[in-house]
Amino acid sequence: MASIEEAIFPHLEPAAARRLLLAAHQVFARKGYAAATTREIAAGARMSPAAMYIHYRSKQDILFHLSLLGHEACEEVLLAARAAESTSPGRLARMIGTLAEWHATHHTTARIVHHELTSLTRDNFDAVAVIRRRIDALIAGVVTAGVTDGSFRLTDPAGTALAVTSMCVDVARWFPAGTLHSPADVRTLYADLALRLVGATPG
Amino acid sequence: MASIEEAIFPHLEPAAARRLLLAAHQVFARKGYAAATTREIAAGARMSPAAMYIHYRSKQDILFHLSLLGHEACEEVLLAARAAESTSPGRLARMIGTLAEWHATHHTTARIVHHELTSLTRDNFDAVAVIRRRIDALIAGVVTAGVTDGSFRLTDPAGTALAVTSMCVDVARWFPAGTLHSPADVRTLYADLALRLVGATPG
Repeated sequence: MASIEEAIFPHLEPAAARRLLLAAHQVFARKGYAAATTREIAAGARMSPAAMYIHYRSKQDILFHLSLLGHEACEEVLLAARAAESTSPGRLARMIGTLAEWHATHHTTARIVHHELTSLTRDNFDAVAVIRRRIDALIAGVVTAGVTDGSFRLTDPAGTALAVTSMCVDVARWFPAGTLHSPADVRTLYADLALRLVGATPG
Repeated sequence: MASIEEAIFPHLEPAAARRLLLAAHQVFARKGYAAATTREIAAGARMSPAAMYIHYRSKQDILFHLSLLGHEACEEVLLAARAAESTSPGRLARMIGTLAEWHATHHTTARIVHHELTSLTRDNFDAVAVIRRRIDALIAGVVTAGVTDGSFRLTDPAGTALAVTSMCVDVARWFPAGTLHSPADVRTLYADLALRLVGATPG
């Protein structure tokens, strides 16, 4: 898993901080945040607990950074997908296909990020919630734009935007499964499903 | 939460076993399975650990029963929904609306059941997986029937059935949110979304 997850944190410096995040990621995935210990995380990064505290003050601090990086990565792929298309159906299909693919590729990180959200302290949660609201607004924005320009037909834009996002997030829980073996399979199917959910006129 | 969750375990006898499941449910929800202790669970049920062992051999045994009951409840509501309708669109809309509503109503139990699945021992997981496969088959069955009788138009029945189920499961993670305040709101929206996902011909 580490090699896939390195890709989310490529620019994180110094390397020791990256190693700690990757080690924490594996411990959180295996036993959950509450049961994880800083000792195990440090050991996973081949460091002493004392050396760990130079980079992160606590287990909470690590979860917070993991959550921030995961959310920022999602926002980045959504912005890039939106910029790559010019129509509402094109944008929605690419954004949702990409978001679903991201949750398949980075399913371990995504599970931690989404399922341990309630393990964040109030201040840390609030900081992450700012990015979550921006992500929600990005998706709701394209849904609403499609309704306005006549490409989408639906009665509940807010509820549908929530359901579309939720569908992508849950990919991290089950991927891989059934006939969906690769993140690219997920991308193709979910781009199509997103258009169906908004009642896009076939182009 | 206890009063809502009582409804899932109404027939569980004796009452002490039900009290233990409800207490465990709250401890698992608060800190996760790995960090929960049998001592806390027993205390939550106002029992001694020794009295707890009369009903459940371990924390694992409690999680297993919680998982079994949760899955059995989902299967039951799906079977009842299917029996209440006679057409493929009617069946799919009612089944998915009901399943989404169940995940909204019982979101705490559903979160534990789905997110702690990997905390089950191999044998316990296998026993729960038997019910999961029956649930998946119920939903895939109505999707395939709709394709066969011409009411649904879609290219990937297996992938679509998985996505429809996944969409319902994830309701437990976010409910309530946005404009979806009640399980009934979720039911109405998700019944409609399910028909959209399968390309049901407007009836």
